[in-house]
Formats: sequence, structure tokens, C-alpha cells
Amino acid sequence: MTVAQALAALAPARRSAVSDLVPALGVVPARDVRAGEEMPAHARATVDGYAVRAVDTYAASETLPAFLEVTGAVAMGVAPDGEVGPGAATAIPTGGLLPHGADAVVMVEHTTEPMPGHVELLRRVAPGDGVLHAGEEARPGDVLAPAGRPLRAADLGLLAAAGITEIAAHAPPRVGIVSTGDEVVPGATPVLEPGQVRDACAPALAGLVREAGGEPVLRGIVRDEAAALERVLAASVAEDDMVVVSAGSSVGARDLTASVAARLGEVLCHGLAIRPGKPTLLADCGGVPLVGLPGNPRSALVVFRLVGMPLVRAVGGVTEPPPLPSLRARLARDVPSAAGRLDVVQAAVADGVATPLFGSSALLGPMVRADGWFCVPEADTGLGAGAEVCVELYR
Amino acid sequence: MTVAQALAALAPARRSAVSDLVPALGVVPARDVRAGEEMPAHARATVDGYAVRAVDTYAASETLPAFLEVTGAVAMGVAPDGEVGPGAATAIPTGGLLPHGADAVVMVEHTTEPMPGHVELLRRVAPGDGVLHAGEEARPGDVLAPAGRPLRAADLGLLAAAGITEIAAHAPPRVGIVSTGDEVVPGATPVLEPGQVRDACAPALAGLVREAGGEPVLRGIVRDEAAALERVLAASVAEDDMVVVSAGSSVGARDLTASVAARLGEVLCHGLAIRPGKPTLLADCGGVPLVGLPGNPRSALVVFRLVGMPLVRAVGGVTEPPPLPSLRARLARDVPSAAGRLDVVQAAVADGVATPLFGSSALLGPMVRADGWFCVPEADTGLGAGAEVCVELYR
Repeated sequence: MTVAQALAALAPARRSAVSDLVPALGVVPARDVRAGEEMPAHARATVDGYAVRAVDTYAASETLPAFLEVTGAVAMGVAPDGEVGPGAATAIPTGGLLPHGADAVVMVEHTTEPMPGHVELLRRVAPGDGVLHAGEEARPGDVLAPAGRPLRAADLGLLAAAGITEIAAHAPPRVGIVSTGDEVVPGATPVLEPGQVRDACAPALAGLVREAGGEPVLRGIVRDEAAALERVLAASVAEDDMVVVSAGSSVGARDLTASVAARLGEVLCHGLAIRPGKPTLLADCGGVPLVGLPGNPRSALVVFRLVGMPLVRAVGGVTEPPPLPSLRARLARDVPSAAGRLDVVQAAVADGVATPLFGSSALLGPMVRADGWFCVPEADTGLGAGAEVCVELYR
Repeated sequence: MTVAQALAALAPARRSAVSDLVPALGVVPARDVRAGEEMPAHARATVDGYAVRAVDTYAASETLPAFLEVTGAVAMGVAPDGEVGPGAATAIPTGGLLPHGADAVVMVEHTTEPMPGHVELLRRVAPGDGVLHAGEEARPGDVLAPAGRPLRAADLGLLAAAGITEIAAHAPPRVGIVSTGDEVVPGATPVLEPGQVRDACAPALAGLVREAGGEPVLRGIVRDEAAALERVLAASVAEDDMVVVSAGSSVGARDLTASVAARLGEVLCHGLAIRPGKPTLLADCGGVPLVGLPGNPRSALVVFRLVGMPLVRAVGGVTEPPPLPSLRARLARDVPSAAGRLDVVQAAVADGVATPLFGSSALLGPMVRADGWFCVPEADTGLGAGAEVCVELYR
């Protein structure tokens, strides 16, 4: 199965829980968030200057300024009490409420003060100049933040300006992370017995889950034993929104994961046309997606980035995924590939040149040293030195 | 002052505190993290198959297989007890420890089992084939994670594999956020009095601080009064690694911030050649950078993204900032600009075309509706329709 087919086959039916959340970076609105009031409620000055009737300025110029009487001053944060009559002006700061009668604000830079209590306008203004109108930011019912797009900094500002302190939003999806393998021991194990390896997959996958907006639930290391694995996976399926298993590196461990997954749900894919990452398993456990990853940490991370992270976002209600950093670069050397298989290649990038980093997929090093990765598409049999590739950058 | 000059002038002398932290996404190592042991400690199989002496396979082919006696099987997670002698083979799973005597692993796909206890090899292997050597991932002293680069998912995996559960790292920099203005009230205010506005800057800036890896410290709203502002800013300078003030929208409020900042430190810049965002103030308060932002939320966010976020990263010890998403697009229409000033323009992007979103800088809407932003450089007097721009994307 290709990666695209796998993503299409495993379109998850369920979404993470919806509840009222405080707007924060990355929170995903479950419904469009709409304005409840006019924003701003009243017209305001957008410059420091004088609130005037525009008609009084129509003849004004540098050589023949308009001469107006200053009849008041607007203070910040309070309603102006006076009215601007014909031939009059009121001093006003940026953000000050436009007083009645005025329909424009002349910038202070375009005025002079010939004598106390009076102002000369050196330029004409049109109605609306220097003014932010009532409702210009939003009217009641306008969408302030769309459903499915994780909140960004500017959204937080707009929602705060609207006085919206809670929104219906998707909870960060809980992603159960299970490590398997008789040889796998916790990362905190100070000294390894011969044959043991520390669990690199779980913490790395937890990082990718967080990067995709999910909440990792570390469910520990399970031995290669069917009953134990089924117990842990069943608990994760019951309590989490998505399950990820790093499936052990040996063929026996992989078969075990597949047989347990088949008892918990429907196996949709067992073997993905990708390198590294072929022994990938995808199952639908009553609406909860289960992803069985290769035991090699690097293969597991490659597959989870391509298949798992889009799933985490989908389960968390994201319909507008955030853009990912990438850049175009020219290959420093030939990259061989087999047709019918997506090859994911780690790469260092400098000065527009991408240098592929090879090495056994059992090594994490090439991924750690890489700036990003690029794909050789399924249809290609390789790419030549000098070919342009799009490198997706790690961050 | 240009943005580049401002960033150069305000190179902060101090870094956030260094302590032992658990490796996690985005944590910034204060020193190179090095391996303390060989990784892996022993040679391992990278395929399922048979551990052999390569020399026994040199004559093997599909037509004339090599015939070996299977003298044992390696189990996962334990040291193999036997030795592979001449003419012998030991079954081994991926990840299994290579037994003594063997120097290569033949993939099970390249073997047949002619009778129990024996195996036929259909291909020759060279020493090291199918084997991950001891120390191939890292040797003691090798750098696993470089200082100054925020940890990524693959780093978490490699550090866990190395058994490193704590590293010397920079604390997320504490960024004090102060809002000023007699007209500004908290976002939770249900009904506004005429002339009041809810504080949009603080929550939006807190979002950008988090995006840059910092820890926002919300220090509330201060009225336009010198003593009160100095008290709050002095406390932030004393307790935080960096201070940000949204400086009120009126010229009076801005002057107030400037005079208070001058009493707390050295004002390096008062007025930035950027639109929106000209009334920006930068000061060095005994090593703590203070950024005074325009009162307009959109102007404040534009300036903070360009000047504030690099400062947050620098104060937090980041020397290799993460890449930002961007794409090249063609302008849908002319964009005017004045020479000598950096213009930051909000833009919607679709199908390779960037449509500038204009509107008063008092409006957040254009930024909320934008996919990203682009700059018209200081030297340019504008860009014509069809010109290619690099749009930095919001995420």
C-alpha cells in the first residue's frame, strides 16, 4: 500500500473530545468562533491629532491653512462629553473615542498652533480619514477564528479583544505509545545487559505527537507475549484517541503485533511501500486508529511523520494543518531508488545543496545530523546529482 | 534604525539560567551532549537470518548453495552462549546479538531449510553484511546533541538510547509582558465602557513568546502613570530575562514608556524604520533587553515577530534557530512602499499567488485572515504585480 492509500484508508471516524477551553496557541476550535458585538463599538482615532468636521477642512492647504477653535480634548478610556461643532476642533490621541459631530481626524503633524486655543490645519481631510469606524474590525456574527485551524498568536489577540475567554475546542488527542520487545528496557536503565537496548522509540514518538498537537500517553514496554500485548493495547484503545506501537524489530515480534491488532480491530494495511518503514501496520479498532511501526527508531520516526502525524491532527479536529518548513535544493550526488516504493532520504542542506546522509536504518545518527528529509516518489527509479528536491526541514 | 541594526545593537549579554533538565522537545542544550558509552555496545543483526562466518559463504550461489549446520538460535535481549564455528550457522532475529565466531548475517529470504537442523545459503555475504557494529552509532565522547539547537524528536530518541536522562540546558527564558494604557481593560471584561478596549496585546504576545520557546510572565495592565509603570517594569527587569511593553497607542503614552525605560537602562533605539511598527523602543536594562512595542496589536505583533522572537531565542541560548515555513509566490497587485523603510505586508496565498491584505494597522483582521507576510525591503520603493516575494507563513 502506498502512503497516500494508507492515509485515505485510515480516515479516522472519531475526533477528540470537545469542551470549553481557554484560547491558547494551537488550540483547535471545534466550531467557528463568532463575534458577539461590534468591534470596535464606537469610532476611534487612528492617529494623534484633532477631531474635526471634514467639511471645515476642504479649503485647507499649506499656503492657506484652515483656522479652527479648539473646544476640548478627548482623554483615553472615557467617553468624550462635548460635541465638535462647525469651525471647531477637539484634540484627540490615537485610540481616543471620536466625539459627536466629528467625522475625521487631522494628524497633529499636519497642524500648527498659531495661538493657544486654536489650531491651523495645513491639509484637507475626507470624512473617515484618521478614523477606525464602529464595526470595522468585526460585526456581530462575523467569524473571528475558523473551526479546524489551530489558534495562532493573532487569533488570541482578536478573541481577547472580543472578550471571548472560552471556546468550544477539541482536546489535544491522547495518543497511547506502546513499546514492545524482549530486548527493550527503559531509557533510565544505567547499565545494559548484553543484548538489551534502551527504548528510543517512545520518547522520540512522544516528541512527534506533541509537535502534531497531541498528548502522548506513555504506556510502557511490553514483552513479546500475546496476552500481555493484547492487555496493554486494549487498554489504550479504550482510553486513548489513537494508539501507536513500535512493533519490535524481529519478524516474530511484528507478526505478534499483527495478530493482536487483528483481534482488536480491522487490519487495513500490513506493509507500506516505503523505505525505511516497510513493516508498517495500520488498523481501525472501532474508530480508534492503531499504527504499528517498525522497531528501528529511525524507520519508526519516518513512518510516523508521514502517516502518524497527519492522523494525530485529523483526530484532533485539525482541518487546516499548519504549514511545514521546506526548501528547494539541488542534490549533491545520485540517489538510487526502486520503482513502486517511496524512498525517504535524510539530508544535510547548505547553500542550496542537499547532501544525502545514508547509513543503516538501525542508526538514528543520520536523522539527528540531517537538516531535513526528501522523498524519491514511488514512480521514480532514482534521482541524479543536480536534480532539484524539496527538503522538508526538521525544527 | 533598521531592523537589522536594532538586532545587532541589542545583542543580549545574558542567557537564561542553566540547570539539569529532562530532555524534551525544544529544550536547548547549554553544552554539547556527548555519548558516555559505545552505541551499540555489541555487534547486532540488522536482518532476520543466520549468523555465519562469511568465509563459509564465498562459494554459495542459487545453483550451488552452501550447506551449513544450524548449531543454535539467538534470543532477543540476552547474550548468545554458543560460538559459531566453521561450517556452522546460528539463527538470529533482527536486533539479536551477534554470537562469537560469526562476522555476518545472511537474510532468511536468501536461505532454504533442506532438512531440520541445517540451512542452505543461496548467496554469498561479506564480513559485516547484515551487522550493526559496536560503536557504529556513537563512540564515547561523540556529540549526540549540539549546544544551542533545540532538541528535536530524533534527538530525544538518541539521548534515550544513550541512557541520558538529564542534560545541562537553558531554562525557557521568562519574558515579562506589560500592557499600558488608561483605556486598556482585561480581556475577561464582559461589557466595555465607551472608550475602553480589551487587552489584545498581552495574550497575543504570550503566544509568540511560547512559539519562540519562552515562558510568558503576564504582568498585567498599567495606567499611563510614570510611578506605576516604573514599579512594574523594574520588577520585571529584576525577575525576568526579557521585558516587553505594549506602549499605549497615544504619543503621550509612548513618551511615558520611553522616559521610564531611560531611567531603568540605556535606550538604544526609539523609532524603527518599519511599517507598521515605527514607534518601537529598545533598551538594555543591565543586560535585560526591554522592548517597547506600538500599542496597536497588529503593529506590536509585526515588530515582536521580527525583533522580539529572535531576542527570546538568543536569551534562551538558541544558536541554531529552527527553520520557519515560507513559500515563494507572485504578487497579485502592486504594493507601494517608501524607500528607507521596511514594509511588512499581510498576505493570503493560493496557487502561488500572494494577495496583499491591506487595512488600518489598528485592525487585527488582516493578520488573522492572512496565511503569512512578506517584506518590501528598505531599499525598494514598492513592488509591482507579478513580482516574486517570499511569504513567511504563520503556523
